[in-house]
This record gives sequence, structure tokens and C-alpha cells, in this order.
Amino acid sequence: MDVMERAARIEAEGGHVIHMEVGQPAAPAPDSAREAARRALDHGRIGYTTALGLPSLRARIARHYGDSYGVDLDPARVVVTTGSSAGFILAFLAMFEPGDRVAIANPGYPPYRHILTALGCEPVLIETDAASRWVITPEALADAHRQAPLKGVLVASPANPTGTMMRPEALAELVATAEALGIRFISDEIYHGLDYAFPATTAAALSANATIINSFSKYFCMTGWRVGWMVMPAPLVRAAERLQQNLTISVPTLSQIAAEAAFDGAAQMEAVKHGYEENRLILTQALPRAGLPEFLPVDGAFYLYADISRFTDDSAAFARRLLDEAHVATTPGVDFDPHRGHHYLRLSYAGALEEMREAVARIGAFLARG
Amino acid sequence: MDVMERAARIEAEGGHVIHMEVGQPAAPAPDSAREAARRALDHGRIGYTTALGLPSLRARIARHYGDSYGVDLDPARVVVTTGSSAGFILAFLAMFEPGDRVAIANPGYPPYRHILTALGCEPVLIETDAASRWVITPEALADAHRQAPLKGVLVASPANPTGTMMRPEALAELVATAEALGIRFISDEIYHGLDYAFPATTAAALSANATIINSFSKYFCMTGWRVGWMVMPAPLVRAAERLQQNLTISVPTLSQIAAEAAFDGAAQMEAVKHGYEENRLILTQALPRAGLPEFLPVDGAFYLYADISRFTDDSAAFARRLLDEAHVATTPGVDFDPHRGHHYLRLSYAGALEEMREAVARIGAFLARG
Repeated sequence: MDVMERAARIEAEGGHVIHMEVGQPAAPAPDSAREAARRALDHGRIGYTTALGLPSLRARIARHYGDSYGVDLDPARVVVTTGSSAGFILAFLAMFEPGDRVAIANPGYPPYRHILTALGCEPVLIETDAASRWVITPEALADAHRQAPLKGVLVASPANPTGTMMRPEALAELVATAEALGIRFISDEIYHGLDYAFPATTAAALSANATIINSFSKYFCMTGWRVGWMVMPAPLVRAAERLQQNLTISVPTLSQIAAEAAFDGAAQMEAVKHGYEENRLILTQALPRAGLPEFLPVDGAFYLYADISRFTDDSAAFARRLLDEAHVATTPGVDFDPHRGHHYLRLSYAGALEEMREAVARIGAFLARG
Repeated sequence: MDVMERAARIEAEGGHVIHMEVGQPAAPAPDSAREAARRALDHGRIGYTTALGLPSLRARIARHYGDSYGVDLDPARVVVTTGSSAGFILAFLAMFEPGDRVAIANPGYPPYRHILTALGCEPVLIETDAASRWVITPEALADAHRQAPLKGVLVASPANPTGTMMRPEALAELVATAEALGIRFISDEIYHGLDYAFPATTAAALSANATIINSFSKYFCMTGWRVGWMVMPAPLVRAAERLQQNLTISVPTLSQIAAEAAFDGAAQMEAVKHGYEENRLILTQALPRAGLPEFLPVDGAFYLYADISRFTDDSAAFARRLLDEAHVATTPGVDFDPHRGHHYLRLSYAGALEEMREAVARIGAFLARG
């Protein structure tokens, strides 16, 4: 927030800021989605839907699992949600009780721990590092469970802020370990579709007991529409339905209609993805030459998580200087990692190609000035 | 839900069901709102907004308090929410801790107690009756507070399911009592604008420490858009902002844009309200002649809460029979009141005029058959 306000001030004064702090695509939703919304607006009332979501959308999402992963999924296990944010709330309330311990990776997406805390659960941060490709290992999970029993574990692949992915065997082993220990498995797959290093695996292919959380926000560029979905273990669907009835009534109707049509716009979204891939190539090739050689595996999503420990022990101050002096907005690692975040910086490459080149030039000049 | 499924089955078999079970208007959102949404769809990306909502919408909502109630309201106290449902979650989390006791009226809107329970709070049901015009009295509040301290009290006027309203002096006295006892006051004003017996009073006019929850769903006929707002005490806004950032990121953008424009469609909405008033007149005049003479004060919203104790001790069975035999769908009181709901039935008069006349005829024939 601090970064965004400073950036807005620089722009108000006529400066040109390159926005590498944003967590959302610059492209709009697919034409098919927007056209479906337009048609719905012409046809009268936009009323409530059933709590679990439009049956046709649930069926279309289930079909997506066949098309994209070869997984035969029962639409009855699909729960439409108000973005992945509401999915987390529903999932946590359906599965956990106050006081329950839930493991999450550090660094990680801050709302995981904030939502868990707001609901009275205890987030258990598991440190990750280069040796494990920055993911929770079966050993680390078992260790944390020995200290005090865990009720759940939540992973993301591709992950925010790291941009790293879990290799298929790493995900499979972690799912198996969690199941063996009686720990609920939650897989945040919001960045699925944006995988460059290797194809992302869905936990839905590995276990019928895993809960998958996903959204139309990232791959389909529909952040402001607030529509996502969960794939839940069949026995939890009824609990999620009751919670949704009481906590939200239903998910925004226009967004559900647009989301169903978004699947028809995949060609357009593949072009957007191709743009991210080009941006990724520019950054991974040019940043080392510009003086920023250390970053985590840039596997997916649209984030590059850079190690800046050779320059600073205060990533927040570093991000402020980079913004003030080079007009490049980034997010300091302290936003994502309370322990080692002072040594990291998250760069989003969801922007335009020319901006990536310009960003590298500015960062190079900034670092050269020292 | 049971009623809706049975009604759907009757319709699938060619029957004509009169829907008096629904809690939403039959009319669409104002043309101005839908036109604003169309324009936004033509202009590219629908991205996140700031967590508290679009500044122009917050300012427009604040102006509404000047226009409608003569209250000078700082837009900084307005928090845009994903329907009133999300407003309750944010308000409860911003104000209460697990274990806190919060008073609500019985009968009342079931999600109040379900949301409180999901968040670990204790809903304290305060019985209401004809002597108090079915609202919580200062004496009843003080009594409950003496038994064990209350942290909050939530009232609705007009109320669901009763359709009754609090008289201005009753609301003022309850707000004053709550403040004197250190109990947070939450006023659910979602049915404001739909007041027939006398003008509704906003708690915002009575205290800067009250929290007001409202929505575009009812008066503006925007249920499926999922957009509402709160007016919060200034010291709580920052907490609500942080919660919104983490729990929802932001409110659906298209819905916020449409909501701002909805205020320009008030003339259209006044015509819809006039329709409810005509429906209300038909029901209140004709139902007694049809054999259903006992109901609560039909002050506002679009609900009539009928006493059916002379016919049954099982409102759910009565509602089923009324649906199966007369094809009139209603909601049994047990959905709203765990103690006396078996003697009540909620009839929604949000439907069309002709349907009201036909409903009365069918109910009369049904009761005559015995």
C-alpha cells in the first residue's frame, strides 16, 4: 500500500512509473466473458443464484478438469466462490475449528495467515529454501505435526510471491504424507495455466480428499469480477453449501455468467500468457547482467522473487529508493515473509513487454549508482 | 430450500406456483445501473478497487444520507461491502472476539445467528412480542446484559421476517441504552426505502458510534450484484479496511460502478415501491376476509408475518400443504424462530399485483377446505 501511494504521487507529478508491484494482469477478461455479461444485462433481473453456483458453470468447471488435466470430476464437487478469497474462508470454516493448527509455506501469500487468524485458527509457518525448491517437504510437514498435531496444510503452486512451482512428484509425496498423517490438504491453484517451467499438476488428480482452490482472476484476467471455485471432497460440499447460504447467499451472478463464457476465450488468454513468457525471458536473461543475478526459480505465475541481500538488509527501504530514484515500483519481501523478507523483493512481470526492457535498464542504472 | 425444490417440481409438472417465499424483488436493477455496467464493460479491464470501495461510490453513499435523512456523513466512514452479508462478517470481526455475546431479536433473519456462531461469537436471542411491536426493548436489552455482559446488539427495521419497523423513539431509546451500557449497536437497514407505515429512521442520525449495514439488494433490486455498504464509527474503519484487504481484496467492481449509478434510478425504484404498497394493501385488506386475520404490523420491507396458530402447530407441514394443494409457496416461521415459529408463516409480497389477488383467493379456498 505504501508503495502504491508513493507511485501514485510520482505519477501525479508527471513521472512515469513502471508497475512491477501489481498482483493482477493488465489485460481485460476474454471478449467471450464480457459479451456474456452484456447479454445478461439485456435480459432483465440479475437475481441470486443457488448457493453452490450456477449449475451450468459448475458443470463447465468440471469439464475443464477433463480437458486440461484428464481428470474425471463430478460437478457436484465444484463450489463456486466469490473469488479465491471467499474460497479460503469457506474451506477453513468447513474443515477447521478455532485453535486448529494449519501449516503454510514461508514466504507465502499474507492473507493465508490473516484469514486463519481472523477465524481463530493458528497458522504454522514452515520455512522453505532453495534445497527444497522453496516448497514444504514431507519431512518438514511431519516435523511440524510431531511438535503439535496439524489439522491442515495449504500449498500453492505456482506460488505467490516466489513464482516457484512444486514438481509433480513433490506434490504427490506431500499429498500422500498429509493423508497418511490425517492432515487436510488444500491446494491453491489460482496461478494454474500460467506455468512455464513445466506443466502444473492439480491435486484433484492425486486425491479425492484434497480441496482445490482456484479463481478466474489470474489466467482469465478477471480480478475485479470476484469469481472463483473450489473442488471439495464430496463429504464437505454440504457444509460449504450451508456456509455459503449464510455467509454470502450467492456469488455475483453476472460474474458467474461471464466466468462460464470465459472458457471460450482460452485462445485470447493463451496470447496473454505468451506475453508473460516473453517478459519472463527478458527478466531472467537481462536482470543478471543488470546486476541482479540471484532469484528463485521463475517457474510460473508472473512473479520473480529476487534476493537483494548483497545490497541491503531493509527491503522496504530498498523498494522505496528504487521507486523514488528509478520510478520502478516493486513489493518488498517483508510483505510476504516475516523472517527473511528483508532480503527479498517481488517483481511482477504482468505488464507490457517494453516496460520490462525499460525496467531492467532502470534497475541496472540504479544498482550501478549504488 | 425444501419449499423451493417442491415448487420447482410442481412447475416442472406444469403447475402455476405463486411465489410468496422469495426474499428478493422481481424487478431488475434501475436502467441507470445496468447502463453504467454496460459502459464499464466497453472500457477494458475490470480490475480490483481499493479495499474500502470506489471513492466516488463512497462519496455518493454519503450524499444519500444528506438527501434522504438530513444527516451530514463523512464519506471516510463508508465501507463498501460484497452485499450486506459481507458487511456482517466485517462488522463482527472488527468489533467482537470469540466468545462475545451479541443480542439479536427473535424472530429474526437466520444468518445473523449462523454468522455469529461461525465466527465463534454467541448469539443471544431476545424474544419479542406484540406488546413491544416485535422489537427489542431497552428493558429486555438491559435484562440480557445483567445475565451476562453483552458486547453488541443487532436490530433490523424494517425487519425480516416480520415486516415490522421500530418507531423512531423506540430506536432512539435502544441506541441510548446500548451506549450507556457499553454495548456496540448495529443497525441492519437493508429494507430502508421500503417503509409504508411511517418513515424509517437511520441509526446514523442518532449516534456516531452505531454501525449501519445496508445494501443495494432490496430497494434498488440488485440482489445478484452482491453490493452493499456499512457506515462505521470512524475508529473502526481502519480495522474494516485491513479485514477487507485480507478476506475479500475488494468488492465486485462492475457492481460498484452500477451501484453508484443506481441512485440516479430512484424514480424507477419508487414505482417498484408503489407496486409493493398496492400488494400490501390487497393482502392486509383481503387476507382477513380469506380467513387469515392475524398478522404482525405490516410496516415495511415486503413481508407479512401471519399467525397460523388457529390452524396448526406445525408451520412447515402447513407450508407444504399450502404449496402442494393450493400452489402458493411461503416460508414457515420455523426458519426464523426456533421457539414460536411453528405458529407462523412468512408471505413475501414482492411479486406482481395479479399474483397477490390470486394468492388470496387460493389461500381462502385452501382454508375453507380445512
